[in-house]
Parts: sequence; structure tokens; C-alpha cells
Amino acid sequence: MKVAGSHYRSIVNRAGRVFVIDQTRLPHELVLVELRSLDDAAAAIRNLVVRGAPLIGVTAAYGVALAMAADPSSAALEAAISTLVATRPTARNLRWAVDPLGGELRHLPPEDRSAAAIRAADRLATEDVAINEAIGKHGATVMREIWDQHGRPAQFEIATHCNAGWLACVDWGTALAAVYTAHDSGIPVHVWVHETRPVNQGSRLTTWELGAHGVPHTLQVDSASGSLMRSGRVRLCIVGADRVTREGDVCNKIGTYPLALAARDNGVPFYVALPSSTFDTSIATRDIEIESRSPEEVTQVWGRTNDGQSVNVRVAPPGTRVANPAFDITPARLVTGFITERGVHPPEHLAAALNRPGATTGSTH
Amino acid sequence: MKVAGSHYRSIVNRAGRVFVIDQTRLPHELVLVELRSLDDAAAAIRNLVVRGAPLIGVTAAYGVALAMAADPSSAALEAAISTLVATRPTARNLRWAVDPLGGELRHLPPEDRSAAAIRAADRLATEDVAINEAIGKHGATVMREIWDQHGRPAQFEIATHCNAGWLACVDWGTALAAVYTAHDSGIPVHVWVHETRPVNQGSRLTTWELGAHGVPHTLQVDSASGSLMRSGRVRLCIVGADRVTREGDVCNKIGTYPLALAARDNGVPFYVALPSSTFDTSIATRDIEIESRSPEEVTQVWGRTNDGQSVNVRVAPPGTRVANPAFDITPARLVTGFITERGVHPPEHLAAALNRPGATTGSTH
Repeated sequence: MKVAGSHYRSIVNRAGRVFVIDQTRLPHELVLVELRSLDDAAAAIRNLVVRGAPLIGVTAAYGVALAMAADPSSAALEAAISTLVATRPTARNLRWAVDPLGGELRHLPPEDRSAAAIRAADRLATEDVAINEAIGKHGATVMREIWDQHGRPAQFEIATHCNAGWLACVDWGTALAAVYTAHDSGIPVHVWVHETRPVNQGSRLTTWELGAHGVPHTLQVDSASGSLMRSGRVRLCIVGADRVTREGDVCNKIGTYPLALAARDNGVPFYVALPSSTFDTSIATRDIEIESRSPEEVTQVWGRTNDGQSVNVRVAPPGTRVANPAFDITPARLVTGFITERGVHPPEHLAAALNRPGATTGSTH
Repeated sequence: MKVAGSHYRSIVNRAGRVFVIDQTRLPHELVLVELRSLDDAAAAIRNLVVRGAPLIGVTAAYGVALAMAADPSSAALEAAISTLVATRPTARNLRWAVDPLGGELRHLPPEDRSAAAIRAADRLATEDVAINEAIGKHGATVMREIWDQHGRPAQFEIATHCNAGWLACVDWGTALAAVYTAHDSGIPVHVWVHETRPVNQGSRLTTWELGAHGVPHTLQVDSASGSLMRSGRVRLCIVGADRVTREGDVCNKIGTYPLALAARDNGVPFYVALPSSTFDTSIATRDIEIESRSPEEVTQVWGRTNDGQSVNVRVAPPGTRVANPAFDITPARLVTGFITERGVHPPEHLAAALNRPGATTGSTH
């Protein structure tokens, strides 16, 4: 996507050197940092320098490549995979990216592993862009149909949560791919952005992305989602997903479930946009491990002072006990449809649609 | 209530001088500020130096008294009432406090108004304490019954939103009066505190209050309310109210409605604790004006740096458009019971219970 006229991706391989946008410094600074080692890649994932299910999968693949460049032994390969998979326990796309890559590299002689790994990571990145572009097209079709149903209002109001944009992927995004595609095709989309406590991916990243692309948007606190849905203005909610279980339940950023409840209570359709790789038939909802992150994410807020310094400020009293689950589970019964690169699937058809490898299902919204 | 062994009230008349705790500086500093004039009182209400439905009613009464001390003319009286009522358009208790006081003072000769006003404000403050103590007793009875029903677990988990504690009243609180009374009577209450964006009354004030009283508590982001309810640990939600309409719908801090939805979706009883004066038979839900506050409350966060400075930091990109509704409406259908100084009333009996002046209804939960 473009920022001030220049084309950016959230991760890029420049002649064998891997750079990412440091998302912890947005929106105040747009800084590329180089990942020089496995440890750099693992720390970038753990510390949210990169985040978003698709992007952390691709970053992990580059992490394996960086590990193999330093030491292509089988022991180093297994250690790299273990390290990367442990960075974010809930994310499906970590294993999805790293496990097949491990399988591929184990069969190669060590001296070939580094080059093969970087090729595989590049391929994942390229595929991710194509998948997200396809998600965007299917999502924009859904939006156009709903916009038409409502008589093409001059402002088509949608709501999202967290950042399911190009910063969460390599390019385009998932939920926001649909927004960008709809906007570019002339639908007058206006996006309600929820700040997404505690890390503020909405107020820091989604606002910044949408602003850079020229999509009108309004920011509000997460807990205003209920009154917004009740106002009757919103025609559609669309979010991303970190993992979808075999029951079709959606593990996504904390706050997705309350948003889905508010949508349901007010008759607003609720869509989940995701690469089909995020659907995990191997896991039941009861077995999902929800990542618990540090208390400081809640008790401290990072931002910029009036005189331009970036600082953390503490809000709560010292010593306050904190719970900080990173994700929640939205039951499939609250989901209107899943938008993948293959089409639009109601929850009851998701498993069938995605278990046929390569199958393209029609739009069934 | 006590803080470090000393007794505090959120507002106090010391020999004719009115002092309040500056709640914008908590939890980092406990500072009393004097209200010396009508303008001081109005600014304190508007800027959230004092907040909470009962407390702003009492503060407004003292504001009238301060106005009368400076100028007891009828013109000054009417101007004072207009100024105070305009500070927070949604709050029921402002009019409840100020309108009868205005009626009383209009009949007095100007030279008697100042003394009468201060007596009336003192009386309101005293009544507020008695009312909240009664709310606490009824609320603790509800808690004990539910604790008993669950076989008296070693930790009795409840959830609240915003700050409905003694800082929102003169003393005791509404929802937290029930918590304090239950805790003091030996029920092992553990409170889940929601940070309550954007002004963070939960993370700044409720944590501080509960900590000062020794009530175990855990802080989490507002949007974690859904997964908390889903976890099955919480036995009861209890919140305050800024106004309850003739339909029994609850206008309270933004985020109350999503919490009530999550409670309902998971079978958790949802109680609203309030002085009966907060119930407003004169207003229909559709006519409530929801106060819209400044964008900076959302885009900036106030806290303390590691080196002890109190600063505002900006989180969102400059120029981001913001919606900042201060309240939402929780429909009566989501409320298990209203806890007032007169007892516990299911939504369908609220109007009947409160329209009999002075009537004491039994616990009907």
C-alpha cells in the first residue's frame, strides 16, 4: 500500500536483507528495522514490532531463513522452529508457516537450507499478497451488495476492530483489504475504528493506514461499540482472525466477542475476513490456549508528549493486579460469514468449503 | 471511607468552605481543592474534578450556595442554576439536586438565601451518605444470596464498570457500597475492574478505592469483559447509573451495555445500584441526550512517567476524527435487578416501587 506516495510492504526482502516496519513506533514514526538473526525475528514477533496473523507467519519463515544462514545444522533448524512457535502461543499462522518449511528443509543437505528457506519465505510473502487481494475482492462484493440493499447511502458505515490491515499482513490486509477494494471501487465507505486496548492497534495503526489511503474514518473507544451498533448507522462489521477452530469459533483480538454480541443484538451483519490458512481443523475451541500478555500493556500507555517525546505513562496505581488476555473467542453462531480468498462462507459451510483443497466456492452470503 | 487510616469524603464543608478531592489527579496524587465560587463548582463538574451522578448533584447544590454567597439576587440564582445544569447534560442528579433547591430559594428574601443554600447542600450530602449506606446493605444481601447459591466459593468473583464508589458519591458509593458492605461482612469478594476508557475511572479510581479499603481486585481492559463472562468465573455484575428512564433503561458510563450483553450471553446476573433519585419517570429513553465529550479524552492519555512527572501523551495520529459519547443505554431487558436504598426491584416493578414516595419494598430479587 502507499504512504505519502511511496509503496510499502510491512516486510520486505531487499537482496537477502529482511526489513520490517517497526509497528510499535507508529503512528508517530515510520521506521524500517532490519532483522539480522533468528533472535531479531523472534523478538520482533514477541514484542509486537510485527503483529497480525499473516505477517507473523511470514516473519517466522524469514526467521528460519536467518537461522539457517547463521547455522544450517539440523539442531539449529529444530531450535529455530521451537523458538518461533513459542513467541505467540495463540496464532495459527505461525505453525502454518513454520511447520511445512521445517518439513521441507529437513530433507535438504544443510548447505542448501539457507537459500531454500529464503525462497520459501519469499514465496509465502508473495502468496500472502495474492490471497489478501482475493479476500479484498470477495469482501468488497459483500459490501457492495449490502450497500445496494440499503439504497446506496451517501456514507456506508462499517465497523472494525484492531488492525486487520496491510500492517497485519504483507500487503492489503484482510478486513481492510475489503475496505480498500470497496473504497477504490467507489463505495463511500466510512470506517468506525475501535482503539483496541491495550496495545491500541486501532488508534495507532488502523487510523494511520486508513488515513494514508484516504479512507474516511472515526475513532472511538472499544466500549462504544455497543452504542454505535444501537444507533442503527452501521451496516456491517468486519474483523480479522488469529485462528478459527473446527467448530467455526473465531479467536481474534480481545474485544471481538463483545463487538459481535452488539452487532447481533442490533441486527448488524458480522463478517470475519481471513486467509483460509487461519482455519484450523486440528483444534477444538476448548483446547485453544489464549495468550496472556504483560500487565504493563494495560497499566502503561505509550504515546507522544506535546514536545515530541515518546514516553510510557502509568495510569493505574503501582502494584495493581492485572489480567491481560490478548484474544477472545467469538462463537460461530454470531458470525454472518467468513470471507476467505476462496469466497464467502456461512459458518455452517466453512469446514466443507475449506477442506476441499484448491476448491473455489461461490459467494454464498 | 478510609484512606491510609484517615477518613475522607469526596466533598466536605469545613466551616463554610467547600473542599473536594481532585479526581483528575488520582491515583497519583490525593489533593483536596477548594471550590470558592459558582465558576469553580461548574468547572469541577465539567472537567471531571468531581464526577459520578450523586456527587455532581451535591457539588451543584454547593455551587448554588457559593453563588448565593457572592450575589443572592434572583437573577444570580437563575444564572447559577442554568450554568450548573448545562455542565453535564445527561446526568439526572444535577436537576434533581438543583431544581428543588432553586424552588426553595426563590421563596426566600435574598439575604436568607446563602445560609439556606448551604444548609440544603449539607442536608443533601448527609442524605446521600445514608442512601448509599442503605444501597450497600441491600446489595450485600443480594451478594450473600448468590454466594450461598454457589456454595460459598473461597473467592466470590464480581465484575463492575467505571467507578460507582465513594468517589462518585459523598461516601460509600452505589455499586461499590455493596462491595464494601459485603467485604466487611466476610464475603470473600474479588472485583474485576474494567479500566473504563477514555477517562480510565476504573484503572485510576476504582482500583485506588478498592486498594485503600483492602478489597482484592484485578484490572483488565473494557473489551475483556466478554471473555471474562465466558470464563464462567464471574457470579454477578454490578454497576451504577447516571439516569434510568421511565422504561427502566439504564443510562450509564459508555461500556455498560456491552458488559450487560456479555453477562446475558453467559447467564451472569446483572444488577444496577442507584439512589432512587436517579430514576427519572419524566424521560423516555428516546429523549435522552447523550453527552459527547472532547476528542482529546480519547486521543490523549494522562499518566505518570517513570521519573514521576504527570503528562498527557497522544496515542492516535494528529487530526484523527473522534466520537466520544460518555454514556450508553442498557435496555431494561438485560437488567436482573435494580438495587436502591429502598430494596431490590426487578425492572418490571421499578416504576411501581419508586413511585410510592417513601415506600420500602422488600427484596424481590
